[in-house]
Amino acid sequence: MPLTHSITSLDDIRKHLSQLPGPDGAAQGHASEREPQLTKPPGSLGRLEDISLWLCQWQASHPPRMAAPHAYVFAGNHGVTARGVSAFPPEVTVQMVANFEHGGAAINQLCKTFGIKLNVLALDLDTPTEDFSAGPAMNEDACVAAFNAGLDVVTDDMDVLCLGEMGIGNTTSAAAICHALYGGDAADWTGPGTGVGGDAMTAKTRIVAESVLRHKPDITDGLDVLCALGGRELAAIAGAVLGARQKRVPVLLDGYVSSAAAAVLEATMPGALDHCLVGHASSEPGHLRLLEKIGKDALLNMNMRLGEASGAALAVGLLKAAAACHTGMATFAEAGVSDKD
Amino acid sequence: MPLTHSITSLDDIRKHLSQLPGPDGAAQGHASEREPQLTKPPGSLGRLEDISLWLCQWQASHPPRMAAPHAYVFAGNHGVTARGVSAFPPEVTVQMVANFEHGGAAINQLCKTFGIKLNVLALDLDTPTEDFSAGPAMNEDACVAAFNAGLDVVTDDMDVLCLGEMGIGNTTSAAAICHALYGGDAADWTGPGTGVGGDAMTAKTRIVAESVLRHKPDITDGLDVLCALGGRELAAIAGAVLGARQKRVPVLLDGYVSSAAAAVLEATMPGALDHCLVGHASSEPGHLRLLEKIGKDALLNMNMRLGEASGAALAVGLLKAAAACHTGMATFAEAGVSDKD
Repeated sequence: MPLTHSITSLDDIRKHLSQLPGPDGAAQGHASEREPQLTKPPGSLGRLEDISLWLCQWQASHPPRMAAPHAYVFAGNHGVTARGVSAFPPEVTVQMVANFEHGGAAINQLCKTFGIKLNVLALDLDTPTEDFSAGPAMNEDACVAAFNAGLDVVTDDMDVLCLGEMGIGNTTSAAAICHALYGGDAADWTGPGTGVGGDAMTAKTRIVAESVLRHKPDITDGLDVLCALGGRELAAIAGAVLGARQKRVPVLLDGYVSSAAAAVLEATMPGALDHCLVGHASSEPGHLRLLEKIGKDALLNMNMRLGEASGAALAVGLLKAAAACHTGMATFAEAGVSDKD
Repeated sequence: MPLTHSITSLDDIRKHLSQLPGPDGAAQGHASEREPQLTKPPGSLGRLEDISLWLCQWQASHPPRMAAPHAYVFAGNHGVTARGVSAFPPEVTVQMVANFEHGGAAINQLCKTFGIKLNVLALDLDTPTEDFSAGPAMNEDACVAAFNAGLDVVTDDMDVLCLGEMGIGNTTSAAAICHALYGGDAADWTGPGTGVGGDAMTAKTRIVAESVLRHKPDITDGLDVLCALGGRELAAIAGAVLGARQKRVPVLLDGYVSSAAAAVLEATMPGALDHCLVGHASSEPGHLRLLEKIGKDALLNMNMRLGEASGAALAVGLLKAAAACHTGMATFAEAGVSDKD
């Protein structure tokens, strides 16, 4: 079935979300059969055992593959930066994209450390989205175009896909998305981002509250939220999450912004993130609350808040370890080790 | 100064513990100066920033080195297994050592994944320690010999040393050590280990309680606890921790047993574990309580409880990532990225 370029509207996305493939039962069966035979007390590799099972389920493959991890960082600019919501000026988005391309950012080092193929996709940086405190960030066409840009990057030779972002102002977008999806107070969802505090933080929180109030009447589901309060890089992440599900590529989400982008799919169709794990719990305070809402337990908690897919890339080591143990360990029979009495 | 083979008594160890080198101020200064110049919001790499500083402090080196991580797994047999404290028979210790040597265990796969050089040292497996529920596990000579065996493996070309163990019965030893060092109830410190439950678990807890009561009158500090209630692999870990401090090798401790072995040093000389991080929080329930006592926050929490240095090895990926970011990232000036306004 032709998946790319087939999406022309939010309703197309809704249709695809209603037809998602599930986990692969055969691969899951093979994994479940092998795991208890390995030379260790049952369950003693804990979450590594869960990860190798999850890889098999969503790769539809046994043994699990981890030779080709990929990372995509999507970059976008945000009109809401005009409201002074970030500690850094908006030109940093394009400067950091150049930094990624020259190998100078944290994500370059993390990808090198774990053998991850890194790609960066800058999305119309010259044309920021609209200031969502004044109107919708994107109209449907702009949102769908960015969604398709993310969907199109996924190829079935990716063993796992780390999804991250760069975009000055985008923790404001993430906070507004979460407040729109889950209610509560704007302050529950608004954090320092790159490092705002004091009056600027108070203003950021107020902008999130007012923006959600303004758009609430026009919102019917998560995809409407994405258009009204998101950004191009967030729409691209959501598109890549859908594309990965369709192409049997497990996904590692990064921190608050990535998770908020993905959450619009889960809010629209529960179960849409079953093929995703969350690499780390960000120190951006809304992230833990969001993880509870989407029912995910982050793999790492390193007090990081950088974005760029950094927390997802860091978790690739855990996935490689899980796949290696499941695949490479000897069984009790092979090793001549006595089983539990 | 000749460090190896110089230890002939517990008092020698006490003397060495009173003369421990501290963190290197010059390397620490260089690291603290570079970190805020890197292209990321200040503090946004969280614990990775702490790790790179810690590597510099205890390697006495800037930039930090992570090209040569090492792991040592010490194996020992325990007389207390005669009391039925484990779900696996004691011959599994020697079988698992063979499995390590043939590359079939989890630790082999983890070391391969993260480029760690693995060594296994079996300590008199034919001669288990005494059953400590009846008398001291080791006399002073036996304890010092095992301590020296660990101390002697450390060489100054190790960039980090992961310390782990294999020994059927040794979570009983760890529980008894913690109960002796920190009091509380024996049940606070006793867990399922390889998987005991029900009546066997009740019996294990009672054996821990009775053993500590029996030895309490003869115990003056952590080193006495190590002899009375430890095992050869635990003494070797304690020795390796001391040797690493003296040779400027940072240490990654593994789970409950490794941490308990190291804790005897901290109990004898506060600060003795300043050059150690704990790779993961074990699901063995006493571990979190022990980490609080030694003032350590584990790097990972993967619900693992295997030993073999598995949790320490898994954390090596985090150390490699930290060193790579600190060393390889561009500064704001180099990348032409605007700093925080």
